[in-house]
Amino acid sequence: MEMPIDIQHQQMGYDRTATMFSPEGHLLQVEYAEKTVRLGSSSIGIVCSDGIVILSDKRIKDTLIVKSSANKIHEIDSHIIASVAGIVSDARVLIEREQVVAQQHQVTYDEPIEPELVIKDIANTKQKFTQYGGAFMIAGLNGIHPQLFVSDITGNYLSYYANAIGENDEKIKEILREKYKKDLTIPKATKLALEIFKEIQEENFEIDNFEIAYLDKKNKKIVRAEGKNIEKI
Amino acid sequence: MEMPIDIQHQQMGYDRTATMFSPEGHLLQVEYAEKTVRLGSSSIGIVCSDGIVILSDKRIKDTLIVKSSANKIHEIDSHIIASVAGIVSDARVLIEREQVVAQQHQVTYDEPIEPELVIKDIANTKQKFTQYGGAFMIAGLNGIHPQLFVSDITGNYLSYYANAIGENDEKIKEILREKYKKDLTIPKATKLALEIFKEIQEENFEIDNFEIAYLDKKNKKIVRAEGKNIEKI
Amino acid sequence: MEMPIDIQHQQMGYDRTATMFSPEGHLLQVEYAEKTVRLGSSSIGIVCSDGIVILSDKRIKDTLIVKSSANKIHEIDSHIIASVAGIVSDARVLIEREQVVAQQHQVTYDEPIEPELVIKDIANTKQKFTQYGGAFMIAGLNGIHPQLFVSDITGNYLSYYANAIGENDEKIKEILREKYKKDLTIPKATKLALEIFKEIQEENFEIDNFEIAYLDKKNKKIVRAEGKNIEKI
Amino acid sequence: MEMPIDIQHQQMGYDRTATMFSPEGHLLQVEYAEKTVRLGSSSIGIVCSDGIVILSDKRIKDTLIVKSSANKIHEIDSHIIASVAGIVSDARVLIEREQVVAQQHQVTYDEPIEPELVIKDIANTKQKFTQYGGAFMIAGLNGIHPQLFVSDITGNYLSYYANAIGENDEKIKEILREKYKKDLTIPKATKLALEIFKEIQEENFEIDNFEIAYLDKKNKKIVRAEGKNIEKI
Amino acid sequence: MEMPIDIQHQQMGYDRTATMFSPEGHLLQVEYAEKTVRLGSSSIGIVCSDGIVILSDKRIKDTLIVKSSANKIHEIDSHIIASVAGIVSDARVLIEREQVVAQQHQVTYDEPIEPELVIKDIANTKQKFTQYGGAFMIAGLNGIHPQLFVSDITGNYLSYYANAIGENDEKIKEILREKYKKDLTIPKATKLALEIFKEIQEENFEIDNFEIAYLDKKNKKIVRAEGKNIEKI
Amino acid sequence: MEMPIDIQHQQMGYDRTATMFSPEGHLLQVEYAEKTVRLGSSSIGIVCSDGIVILSDKRIKDTLIVKSSANKIHEIDSHIIASVAGIVSDARVLIEREQVVAQQHQVTYDEPIEPELVIKDIANTKQKFTQYGGAFMIAGLNGIHPQLFVSDITGNYLSYYANAIGENDEKIKEILREKYKKDLTIPKATKLALEIFKEIQEENFEIDNFEIAYLDKKNKKIVRAEGKNIEKI
Amino acid sequence: MEMPIDIQHQQMGYDRTATMFSPEGHLLQVEYAEKTVRLGSSSIGIVCSDGIVILSDKRIKDTLIVKSSANKIHEIDSHIIASVAGIVSDARVLIEREQVVAQQHQVTYDEPIEPELVIKDIANTKQKFTQYGGAFMIAGLNGIHPQLFVSDITGNYLSYYANAIGENDEKIKEILREKYKKDLTIPKATKLALEIFKEIQEENFEIDNFEIAYLDKKNKKIVRAEGKNIEKI
Repeated sequence: MEMPIDIQHQQMGYDRTATMFSPEGHLLQVEYAEKTVRLGSSSIGIVCSDGIVILSDKRIKDTLIVKSSANKIHEIDSHIIASVAGIVSDARVLIEREQVVAQQHQVTYDEPIEPELVIKDIANTKQKFTQYGGAFMIAGLNGIHPQLFVSDITGNYLSYYANAIGENDEKIKEILREKYKKDLTIPKATKLALEIFKEIQEENFEIDNFEIAYLDKKNKKIVRAEGKNIEKI
Repeated sequence: MEMPIDIQHQQMGYDRTATMFSPEGHLLQVEYAEKTVRLGSSSIGIVCSDGIVILSDKRIKDTLIVKSSANKIHEIDSHIIASVAGIVSDARVLIEREQVVAQQHQVTYDEPIEPELVIKDIANTKQKFTQYGGAFMIAGLNGIHPQLFVSDITGNYLSYYANAIGENDEKIKEILREKYKKDLTIPKATKLALEIFKEIQEENFEIDNFEIAYLDKKNKKIVRAEGKNIEKI
Repeated sequence: MEMPIDIQHQQMGYDRTATMFSPEGHLLQVEYAEKTVRLGSSSIGIVCSDGIVILSDKRIKDTLIVKSSANKIHEIDSHIIASVAGIVSDARVLIEREQVVAQQHQVTYDEPIEPELVIKDIANTKQKFTQYGGAFMIAGLNGIHPQLFVSDITGNYLSYYANAIGENDEKIKEILREKYKKDLTIPKATKLALEIFKEIQEENFEIDNFEIAYLDKKNKKIVRAEGKNIEKI
Repeated sequence: MEMPIDIQHQQMGYDRTATMFSPEGHLLQVEYAEKTVRLGSSSIGIVCSDGIVILSDKRIKDTLIVKSSANKIHEIDSHIIASVAGIVSDARVLIEREQVVAQQHQVTYDEPIEPELVIKDIANTKQKFTQYGGAFMIAGLNGIHPQLFVSDITGNYLSYYANAIGENDEKIKEILREKYKKDLTIPKATKLALEIFKEIQEENFEIDNFEIAYLDKKNKKIVRAEGKNIEKI
Repeated sequence: MEMPIDIQHQQMGYDRTATMFSPEGHLLQVEYAEKTVRLGSSSIGIVCSDGIVILSDKRIKDTLIVKSSANKIHEIDSHIIASVAGIVSDARVLIEREQVVAQQHQVTYDEPIEPELVIKDIANTKQKFTQYGGAFMIAGLNGIHPQLFVSDITGNYLSYYANAIGENDEKIKEILREKYKKDLTIPKATKLALEIFKEIQEENFEIDNFEIAYLDKKNKKIVRAEGKNIEKI
Repeated sequence: MEMPIDIQHQQMGYDRTATMFSPEGHLLQVEYAEKTVRLGSSSIGIVCSDGIVILSDKRIKDTLIVKSSANKIHEIDSHIIASVAGIVSDARVLIEREQVVAQQHQVTYDEPIEPELVIKDIANTKQKFTQYGGAFMIAGLNGIHPQLFVSDITGNYLSYYANAIGENDEKIKEILREKYKKDLTIPKATKLALEIFKEIQEENFEIDNFEIAYLDKKNKKIVRAEGKNIEKI
Repeated sequence: MEMPIDIQHQQMGYDRTATMFSPEGHLLQVEYAEKTVRLGSSSIGIVCSDGIVILSDKRIKDTLIVKSSANKIHEIDSHIIASVAGIVSDARVLIEREQVVAQQHQVTYDEPIEPELVIKDIANTKQKFTQYGGAFMIAGLNGIHPQLFVSDITGNYLSYYANAIGENDEKIKEILREKYKKDLTIPKATKLALEIFKEIQEENFEIDNFEIAYLDKKNKKIVRAEGKNIEKI
């Protein structure tokens, strides 16, 4: 009886180091690390006609945790926010690095850093280490243009109209492909994101687990809300 | 007959280095190290309305040991205390590092270091080494605000109202979730922590094994007590 | 019963590191990495009588992706374009390196870099690491002479009249060998490349997945087109 | 039939490097090295009301050895003595290091080094290498306070009223716990230590194998004796 | 039944690193790499009474390749040519190195480099890496003396009257031993080399696959020819 | 049937690196290296009432060897001699190092180096490398006091009245323990050493294989003799 | 049935790295490398009453090789010659190093280097790498004293009256032991060496394969001869 090819490759050891190709040309450790990313809690990012929004599931049910200390949406600069799924400690270090990168850009060029330069620096750092820190979602304003970038763990990134990282990312993206429209406003995008989480999480959905942050083109400030306040946007 | 997945992964060697992912996306060495942390003796930290307190089980029954040399609660600075569960020698080195970090902060900025900067430095050090030194509990005053932080072995940390590290941490947290209230005073929190240890340790509970340290918002000094004196607080 | 030689070599471990020879004198990891290259989407490059053209399959069907952010054809300098098949993150880093190399050449010698110097620098970088970044296609003008270079993953490169990288490269080359003529103009070469993709992809062919870039000898500028606009060239 | 868990872990290779955790969270190489320490000959250290004493079994029966060259009790400084069980060559190098550390302290601060600073430096050195040099016993005067420190091989140390390292350390400690009193004088402590060795070694006990060194609070000098002279103290 | 010694050594792993001796005193990885060299296309070098000549099989049947970009005979300096069989990318880097070495020699000593210094530098580079880049054939003029050197992959080299590298090298050498005469002129040596290839390749022989380069003692210039032009020499 | 513990440990690989402990707390590679030492030819060193002597078996039966080039007793300084058993090439390098150390001491302090400083430097060098160079016997004068030191391969050393290294060392030491007396003069010690070799080597004993060197307290010069001349001392 | 100890050790992997001891205390990789040395062609060196001579088998039967380029006897300095058996490329690099060492000595001390300093430098280089370059034979004049040194692959060396390296070295040495006399003149030693090769090689002996070099005490110049000219000495 033939063994499945996956099991064979595991027994042959092709999945033991990050830079070894399997006979089919796959990097198996990278594929395993992608599963780690999908064990993390989810974030949805949506480019809107009037700005950009990220809604994140904090998935913190422990009442002993000070919720404000468990933010999933981080500020890189006053016009750029980020969310991560994967190894949290690696991600925190990378977020702190990008905060410095953004400040240096502001000081050097006397203008805010473009969001793409942030995701590119994250991606380059990851590429050096083959895999590092999980999936990153960067949302920000490039002048008055809202932009959303997502990088995978190998350091590859693309720009998106809307996207999701973490648990159930594929299911969320399917719904987004169906319901996303370019003329969504921030309030409508917020409502859409909440509806998606309700559909996915069903009876486990709890508004208190969620956190939102958005930037609108006009005042260019990061606005944050948590729990029931999200529904008031 | 199928082998359990755990045994399979051990036989495949996925648990032999700290940075190798298993096919399910787990870092098994990190999970094993977390078990080491749970072999250590326990500490309970509680944020109170009037300060913050850590109660630690020194678990030293050997009468040959000079008990004062076996403190589980360490002073990082005059407004910050720490307790650790895990590899003691690694922890001692990290505690000494933070004492220096705190002094440098005082000298550089002419104000006491925030407790979060201490836990962040600990967490960053751990992240560099993937796993290092066990779980850290940092309790301190940020101005007049009592704060409690706990980091796991990978370098991830959060702020808590109350938490426990070491042996039986999950059971202790369950009781804390049920009985913790934000208006606990230092004496009431001390009583709660002692009651929890009595409930968990049953006939093994011995007041002489315990050590307490607390900071109250007013005089901002570390107060320590041991054995029967704890019950007098 | 004899085991096939491939399986034997895998079991003996000859395919575990990039620089180990098998008893037959093969570098197996290099051969596996070549399969990775063939998992990437394809590009066709054609030297024309009046310039040079690259047509690439972006293979992006996800409507959430901002297509302009997913270009497969990159600008190295105003007279050189490049396309890659393989590990995308490695390739991006190498493309950025060549952009700098081209600028430095312009500044140092006050004339545009020859396309061959670009592919040679890419090839040298790959040779240092034994395998790196996938197959590169470089198309550009050397003065008024259109030139097309392709390097394999080991850092070996040659000049071609026409060539293909990525999925189905062998099939595409077969058709090119049959239909390529030296007097093809850019519009005719574009038509030929599209026809080849239609023949290969059959019912999966979708003009919206494609991207083209060309340089003509006269105005020496990179011209780009996407989707239906390609057919208008 | 189930294999014992120890044998399983050995076969899985969890005990092959010093920093690999077993699935139960143990560092097996560290545990093996502790056995090496218990293969070494024993020393007993006792804090007395009038000073501090170490009695060591030199276990040298070879008459060809010049006994004075085989001292088990080393002088770190004029107020600190040390004994070691484990890898002798590593220990010698560490003892020499501490002699220098003590001299540097005297020169820098113009006062004798505290015994705890010596054991801390030894412990830090061990922690850096995970395991190194065996168990150290440091006995000395901190001003007029006699102090006894023992570090295990991982670099963890504590202060003791009395303790033992090397062969049969657990049995010796059991007797010490029973018979040690804080008001022991140096002569009484010496008698107690000799009695313990007689009880443990039975017919193998030979006074000529032993070496003693003590410091009394008054004259603060290291006094040494060997063989029958020990009984005259 | 006994296993053949080759298979035994492979199973024992003696062939896994370049510097491990087998129990018979062989370096097996070196022997495997020599097979790689024999997978490359062949070159014949012949010292003539009036100069020196290399005839190479380019073995390029793909009509898409620009043949002039696929030269097998490289110019090191105006009086030295080289051909290689083995890992092409390694060889290219080494050829470029020797071009610089030759220029530096000319500048430093104001006279052309001796061909032996080139092969010695190649051999030294190979020796450092144990195996590197395949077999090199260096043909050149030392003053008016034509010289031919060939190095194997370990960095050992010798001077030859005539020699071959690559596929079927042993068969070619056998014919050379029989038919080579010291009074061969360049045209006669060219004819001999072509005849040998015809004899070896039989119906696969195709004059268009070949490339020649020679240096005659008088004008001391490299002359090149391809395809049918070779037969006109 | 149980496998012997030795074979088990070999199969488990505990004996593959110099710093891995077996489950019993042994360093097996060190124990194997000690066997190498016992494959070397023997030397006997004896402290005498009037000086110190080393008698060495050169074990050179090949008449083609220039015997004076095969001395087993080396001069470290004019008052210190040394003999080694084990890896000869490592030992030679260490001997040369000590000759320099001795000269530097003489120049720096204007007095001859103590023999113990030489053996300590040898031992420290060995300790750094865990195992290195075999067993060393150092014999010399400390002022007018003859001293004999022997270090094992781990870098541990002691002072001896008499000792042996190399083949049959244990048997030789047994006889020395029985027959050594502190009032032996150099001639008597020489006779004793020769008798021991005769007893051990029986019919293989051949005076021509031996070499002696001694230092007497009075003239403090190294005196050497070989073969039959030894018997005349 | 018991497996032979050799096979057992191979299966246990004791022969996989150069510095691992087998349970019997052997360094197996070193022993394998010694077999490589015996695969090389042989040289005989003989100290004569009037000088010193080396006769080497070049073992080159390929008529395509320029014999003068395949010298087995190398000049280190005008008074020192060398021959090697083993890895030829390593040896060439070491020979070149010694040529420089000899020149530096001449320049620094204004006198020719002693042959022993050359073999010592070779031996030290080998000792650093545990095994390197095969067996070296160094023959030269120390003032008017002819000296012959041979080092094995570990870096151990001795002085000899006569010796052989390479194929059949043991057989050659047996004959040398029998027939060598200290009063041999260069012509007689040459004849002896030729006779030995004839006896060993029987019908394979061919004078054209041989090369000789000698130094006589009077004119102190290296004289070389090849083939039939050897018999005229």
